[in-house]
Amino acid sequence: MSGGPDSSGAISRRAFVGAAGLASAGLLATAYATPAAATAGDATDAGPAVVPFYATHQAGVATPTQDCLVFAAYDVTAPGRSALLALLRTWTDASARLCAGQLLAGDTYPGAPAPDTGEALGLGPAHLTVTAGFGPTLFDSRFGLADRRPAALADLPSFAGDALEPARSGGDLCIQACADDPQVAFHAVHDLTRLALGTATLRYLQLGFGRASSTSSQQVTPRNLMGFKDGTDNLTDEEPDLLERYVWVGSEGDQPWMRGGTYLVARRIRIHLEAWDRSTLDEQEQAVGRDKASGAPLGGTAEHDPVNLRAVGKDGLPVIPAGAHIRVAAPATNGGERILRRGFNFADGVDPVTGELDAGLFFICFQRDPRRQFVRIQTRLSEQDSMGRYLVHTSSGLFACPRGPVPGGSWGDALS
Amino acid sequence: MSGGPDSSGAISRRAFVGAAGLASAGLLATAYATPAAATAGDATDAGPAVVPFYATHQAGVATPTQDCLVFAAYDVTAPGRSALLALLRTWTDASARLCAGQLLAGDTYPGAPAPDTGEALGLGPAHLTVTAGFGPTLFDSRFGLADRRPAALADLPSFAGDALEPARSGGDLCIQACADDPQVAFHAVHDLTRLALGTATLRYLQLGFGRASSTSSQQVTPRNLMGFKDGTDNLTDEEPDLLERYVWVGSEGDQPWMRGGTYLVARRIRIHLEAWDRSTLDEQEQAVGRDKASGAPLGGTAEHDPVNLRAVGKDGLPVIPAGAHIRVAAPATNGGERILRRGFNFADGVDPVTGELDAGLFFICFQRDPRRQFVRIQTRLSEQDSMGRYLVHTSSGLFACPRGPVPGGSWGDALS
Repeated sequence: MSGGPDSSGAISRRAFVGAAGLASAGLLATAYATPAAATAGDATDAGPAVVPFYATHQAGVATPTQDCLVFAAYDVTAPGRSALLALLRTWTDASARLCAGQLLAGDTYPGAPAPDTGEALGLGPAHLTVTAGFGPTLFDSRFGLADRRPAALADLPSFAGDALEPARSGGDLCIQACADDPQVAFHAVHDLTRLALGTATLRYLQLGFGRASSTSSQQVTPRNLMGFKDGTDNLTDEEPDLLERYVWVGSEGDQPWMRGGTYLVARRIRIHLEAWDRSTLDEQEQAVGRDKASGAPLGGTAEHDPVNLRAVGKDGLPVIPAGAHIRVAAPATNGGERILRRGFNFADGVDPVTGELDAGLFFICFQRDPRRQFVRIQTRLSEQDSMGRYLVHTSSGLFACPRGPVPGGSWGDALS
Repeated sequence: MSGGPDSSGAISRRAFVGAAGLASAGLLATAYATPAAATAGDATDAGPAVVPFYATHQAGVATPTQDCLVFAAYDVTAPGRSALLALLRTWTDASARLCAGQLLAGDTYPGAPAPDTGEALGLGPAHLTVTAGFGPTLFDSRFGLADRRPAALADLPSFAGDALEPARSGGDLCIQACADDPQVAFHAVHDLTRLALGTATLRYLQLGFGRASSTSSQQVTPRNLMGFKDGTDNLTDEEPDLLERYVWVGSEGDQPWMRGGTYLVARRIRIHLEAWDRSTLDEQEQAVGRDKASGAPLGGTAEHDPVNLRAVGKDGLPVIPAGAHIRVAAPATNGGERILRRGFNFADGVDPVTGELDAGLFFICFQRDPRRQFVRIQTRLSEQDSMGRYLVHTSSGLFACPRGPVPGGSWGDALS
């Protein structure tokens, strides 16, 4: 929608108007008149901001992190595998159009609702990615998929300090929509939710902003709501070897359909900002292990200086304290394991009990096997991280994300 | 923060580090090293994206609408006028720095927390505006301000169909932070909330996106979550005569301190999107009175065509139906009255009872006298608007926004 009146855009706008039986010449002319204004949305010298939807690996994982997140989890309510597969087919086709910046097409019988809810008309693709995943509960007895559940999709254990809210945890399916425009990301989830009517219902929805982890060396490292740079040593899209090693499922494992896929862990981490904000800068930097302004590891001078966990100060104590977040989370502390972080900040209002901000980090990470990656790292963090006293995990989700659909294929091909 | 190492930025960064007693040469150098990365945030050929804070009228009203909103309402908990005035002084000084893209400065005694929470470091001013208002309850007996309450700050009546939630309605004070970066807007409210510790507590917080009304003829008219263009016939910043007539308080009224100010009405309007999305395009366009794709009034062909409320179709019925939103809300239907709309879309998650999206429009409008403007128009809308069956108002706020502070002055000067 950001470009000129190309053929796909023309088709989409015709479908939009035609769906209500209003395809008269005058109304079509009106619809066609839109692209002039539409170009203002995100036209750049570099062309439309489109991330390819059909690819070996799903987009939205190694894709440079966009500005905004809309994350949705669903419960499948229809019985049987055929309804589930039909939904995944519908979602795949719709997501391909959405990521290309096209309006959704649909049936045009009299009285049919418009096939697209319309609020993204004129905004352009805005680097939208739509990433789908299957939760552990999808592999219970309802859909005959029990023997397709990967061993790596093992329910996450309880961690010290967890305060999970069931209503915003779990889910049979997830959709992660990311874009540089929040309205474009919301529109995707809005329309996919509408298309699920009768098959799946929304379980929870989380908006995020401020991309609290960069996944590209071309991006400035963003800051979380604690004010610290987050994601300095993250995996990036420029490191395909490391992505193969830590993110994409290979030939190992019990389920061939997961080859080329990845596992998504989502944790809504509320930050007790009031307590954090009252601590001193020194306390904060000791808890994180980094300088707040520059992001340099303690003992270093620049953000990307190597983290020296063995350095000892004049007082004989480690320069990076025993409980510092970057020490406890470091690959060297966790058998060399790494994860791809792709979290976003959130602010959902006021805690009705304490009157404090209900805000924090919606942590998302991707990995090849959560058992030896997220679970291993989080077990240690939950016990030793000095930042932990300011954090509480209020939701948890785990999803198996299959490989990217082939053109004309479906996310459900992995399960059919 | 978006520009180079100008003197104000240098001072702010020194304060940030110095506050924790860490002003050693090495750490200062680290802090000073930040601006290089900081320029990536929103440096443009047009220079830093700063909206002047000190002005005759408060910024954030006629200012071209930014991309994102963080709206906060507060209850004042400290007794007495002096604590209230001290808070308003602190908030004014802090907001002036925030809008200039500077870090907050503060006390530097040992053990003091850092004066700035830090998450906007490096992001630039992003056209941040911070607008303050006084709710009706501020003029009760607590602060000796009963005789300063403007007659126009009359409690809003109940409207047909209201379902207001007290916990997110009202408030003694409000802060409207708008910016093109949600993290910059959140940071402002985060720091102002922190500065209110002991004097005022957060009552509710609302994030918004998608600027659902444009307030400048230079902006493409955005769309609300119903998919329709919203704000086509809004007042704009290029019409100072109309702003004087409909928005800024003049010499009328009982309270000279409101001269140059304006009244803010905020209504959280939840949209029953599931029902709306299932209606046909024709039903939607008849309810709104406009073409969905182009935004043209029914009977017209382009968005800005004049709205002809008298046109009759071949069937003898009005082209713009009796209950169409643009008819019921039109100035011609409401004694010529107009308001400056400045709303944002919101999506707060899932309704725990119905499983539907808890999403809609956080409607904000500004006017010279709510009694003859918002109240008059909303009374008619609540009874006659065809869109009303899809809407429910879940919060309500009314605030008197004083004139813009003079340099060195305070929002509280109006009340001192």
